[in-house]
Amino acid sequence: MELWFTEEHTDDVRFSIKVEKSLYSKQSKYQNIDVLQTKSFGRMLVLDDSIVISEKDEFIYHEMMVHVPMMVKPDIKRVLVIGGSSGGCVRELIKYDTIEQIDVVEMDEELVQVCKKYFPKIARSFKDERVKQIIGDGLKFVRKKDDVYDLILVDSTDPFGPQESFFTREFYGHCSRALTEQGIMVTQQESPFYPHTANAMHRAVRRMEELFPEVQLYQAHIPSYPAGYWLFGFASHYDNPVHNVDTRAWLSLKIKTHYYNEYIHFGSFAIPNYVMEDLENDTQSQ
Amino acid sequence: MELWFTEEHTDDVRFSIKVEKSLYSKQSKYQNIDVLQTKSFGRMLVLDDSIVISEKDEFIYHEMMVHVPMMVKPDIKRVLVIGGSSGGCVRELIKYDTIEQIDVVEMDEELVQVCKKYFPKIARSFKDERVKQIIGDGLKFVRKKDDVYDLILVDSTDPFGPQESFFTREFYGHCSRALTEQGIMVTQQESPFYPHTANAMHRAVRRMEELFPEVQLYQAHIPSYPAGYWLFGFASHYDNPVHNVDTRAWLSLKIKTHYYNEYIHFGSFAIPNYVMEDLENDTQSQ
Repeated sequence: MELWFTEEHTDDVRFSIKVEKSLYSKQSKYQNIDVLQTKSFGRMLVLDDSIVISEKDEFIYHEMMVHVPMMVKPDIKRVLVIGGSSGGCVRELIKYDTIEQIDVVEMDEELVQVCKKYFPKIARSFKDERVKQIIGDGLKFVRKKDDVYDLILVDSTDPFGPQESFFTREFYGHCSRALTEQGIMVTQQESPFYPHTANAMHRAVRRMEELFPEVQLYQAHIPSYPAGYWLFGFASHYDNPVHNVDTRAWLSLKIKTHYYNEYIHFGSFAIPNYVMEDLENDTQSQ
Repeated sequence: MELWFTEEHTDDVRFSIKVEKSLYSKQSKYQNIDVLQTKSFGRMLVLDDSIVISEKDEFIYHEMMVHVPMMVKPDIKRVLVIGGSSGGCVRELIKYDTIEQIDVVEMDEELVQVCKKYFPKIARSFKDERVKQIIGDGLKFVRKKDDVYDLILVDSTDPFGPQESFFTREFYGHCSRALTEQGIMVTQQESPFYPHTANAMHRAVRRMEELFPEVQLYQAHIPSYPAGYWLFGFASHYDNPVHNVDTRAWLSLKIKTHYYNEYIHFGSFAIPNYVMEDLENDTQSQ
């Protein structure tokens, strides 16, 4: 018998991957958690029927979350990761000796345990002594912080599920206050191609722009995600992520990456006309 | 009843689009030709079960084929398009008043007629008086040309079907000779993510490098293509496509585009580490 997992990118578009084995399938307090073994994408974590990470291409997402802000501001010392239960962002962060503190807040304890059991190579990054894992609501956690973090990574799932609060004006406001003066917030911002996720991105960008003077989108090719095309949001009170970036300083650190490099850094901020036009038109129609 | 079209990206990965109506389905002398009406991607041309163009995202592919070389060498006057039966490349080319001659060579006459009937908005570009459509074998056509074209666009289908000859050393050699001294060849080079197409790309790049001193890959986000991630090859005896490019000259032409812009130009040549490493490793193992 053949087993196939199918993710619905829209009502009319489906992406299917042949499954060698279902390794875990359970409803946690917050969501359906599935771990699948596949040939083309290796082991995959699927939450509420959406692919969250695959062994084959998770490095792209996690490198782009971490190294883009680290290139812009190499003196980042204290980092907060909201979500990030797999440990992929942490794995990239601990490549920097200068980072002193990494707090990771995830509300779903079952998910944390599943990641540790089924993705041990990624999750072993949590053993680094600078890392503190907190089980709790990211929104409540960040609300209590003031002028603490140099970098906040919002490594959330989709804006339509249990983590919808991580795309709200309220949440971005708390993040803004939790950041140090020159701090940076990076968010995952969905695919700009299909209308329902594009609209969610437009809303999130508008909310960030109300709070941060500097908001820029950047992109990556992530084959296991809808349209293979993913956006990230860069928000700061201080730094433009393209101007005055010291690539030589970053290169001197000799950080090993499989996707990211200094050319990708600048290229990732080159957004297609249609994406920017859709964003502008949607904003004007509000 | 629901109708779905499914393209197999690998033996284990499928991409499916709901079909509102099958408008045309016939085996020509060379290939299976299907035209499908869909909601998410509009009208689609499918050849031998692979999506070739969709109304929703064909502009990305065609803009990237044409405007990248035109930015590098704005004085291009004579252009040869191999394949290109839809007219998408021609539509972009005729935006330049300075182009004097556009020869389009396609071997499948039935495909040409299907495109004119079912994609009239794209195919109307063939009516421009500078365009000459030739039904014939691109390889034989280009073999007879010497120092004629400033730009050759190899707008072919996959390297596994009837257009395999457009990925051979012989063909690239003919193109090299058919080009003027400072001429440019642009090729479609498949997705670098799945191994079978990545390997075809590696072979093609090595062949081009034997003939052209300057060979560079560039990329675009094309959601209807495998992995949503497509590569193009830029080959020239003369120009590097990133250095000494005069963006102001191109901007002064006020060419209207929906994907391409001057930032995308440079960003598209920023290739991820894993793509370049796979290419180097595969070359060393030969």
